[in-house]
Amino acid sequence: MSSHHIVRDEQEPALLIANGERCTDELLGQLLEWSPVVVVLDRAIWRVLDLGIKVDVLLGDFDPAANGDPLDLELIRHRQYPLEVVHTPDQNKTDLEKGIEYLIARGHSAVNIVWATGRRADHSITNMTNIVRYKDQIKLVIHDDYSRIFPLVNTFEKWYEAGTPLSLIPVGTVDGVVTSGLKYNLHDERLTLGHRTGSSNEAAQDGFVRISARAGDLLIMECWD
Amino acid sequence: MSSHHIVRDEQEPALLIANGERCTDELLGQLLEWSPVVVVLDRAIWRVLDLGIKVDVLLGDFDPAANGDPLDLELIRHRQYPLEVVHTPDQNKTDLEKGIEYLIARGHSAVNIVWATGRRADHSITNMTNIVRYKDQIKLVIHDDYSRIFPLVNTFEKWYEAGTPLSLIPVGTVDGVVTSGLKYNLHDERLTLGHRTGSSNEAAQDGFVRISARAGDLLIMECWD
Repeated sequence: MSSHHIVRDEQEPALLIANGERCTDELLGQLLEWSPVVVVLDRAIWRVLDLGIKVDVLLGDFDPAANGDPLDLELIRHRQYPLEVVHTPDQNKTDLEKGIEYLIARGHSAVNIVWATGRRADHSITNMTNIVRYKDQIKLVIHDDYSRIFPLVNTFEKWYEAGTPLSLIPVGTVDGVVTSGLKYNLHDERLTLGHRTGSSNEAAQDGFVRISARAGDLLIMECWD
Repeated sequence: MSSHHIVRDEQEPALLIANGERCTDELLGQLLEWSPVVVVLDRAIWRVLDLGIKVDVLLGDFDPAANGDPLDLELIRHRQYPLEVVHTPDQNKTDLEKGIEYLIARGHSAVNIVWATGRRADHSITNMTNIVRYKDQIKLVIHDDYSRIFPLVNTFEKWYEAGTPLSLIPVGTVDGVVTSGLKYNLHDERLTLGHRTGSSNEAAQDGFVRISARAGDLLIMECWD
């Protein structure tokens, strides 16, 4: 492996496959293309192996299933070799948090996350919102078939086509939100989840959208039907 | 209509069908059974009419679709008569909020909400969390194929089988959370979305679970795989 290759490996986003609703094979294929490492969380491994995807790391608490069946690591290794198996029994963290922390510890600077939304609402909202705690350590994007979700870090700036839907979702309270380029711009305003959010905004015209906030955790969501 | 019937009508939960991911016909059928009124939000009407469900109220801003097509109210009335059509153009509220406010204004004391989760993450998280603002005016439960979601009001008390998954999701910060009957009980503790939530808890044994909080908006989620 050349040093050039190693550098690129560390810069391209890792891929983390969680245990929620499966996305289209097309989306998964796009995210896999350049990914230097694929980490799969716990029992999602069966669905991933069935897709014929090369997995680098299997991570989780490997608790028995609801019916008492343990995770058959022998069989998994038989189907996928080599495979790094990381046992993370900490009950105070979700598998997604453990997966993100694993990648941070390994020096990755970016991660794409799939299968983290849909199905169980508790897992879905927890996964979407818990990524904010890592926003200063690694670049994170959650992808599903209808959404790209990422935390605001410093000032966000990106070119959008007019009418592109863009939602600002505060994880709790966010102060001093300032935007430009949106249909409904915010001018040093407070957003509070459950009471005042910036859902269903959109790019006002072809051009740059800028978003910043003074304090708090803001999620930016690009969504489509 | 007897007065007895009127009383029951007001007590049974209304059914609000939003425009997210469709649930199973079985779940929809259960919720429809006793519902005195069925309210459908905006373009969900086409999917609902295709299921042959009797709709009482169609409510929404009726904005043109992304391709510019207006909502064909003539055709809808042709397929569903009688139908109360409520035009709510306010851009500062979501269709779900308008639907809930409509039911409150009509004197309903409870509402079951379906198709409010899944698909677009921005709509999903906004719908799940915005229900807290109405918690003192109407009893609300969001249902999907994997979850029942409802806000904590005063003290929650319910009998569960041992091992039933139960998640406590703070909409922002919730102080003074006290629980009993859970595997991981909370003793006057603070939960903060994105940082410390009570996801993936469960009933410790067959018996009552009690949950209360001093301040803030807490969602209780019964979820299953």
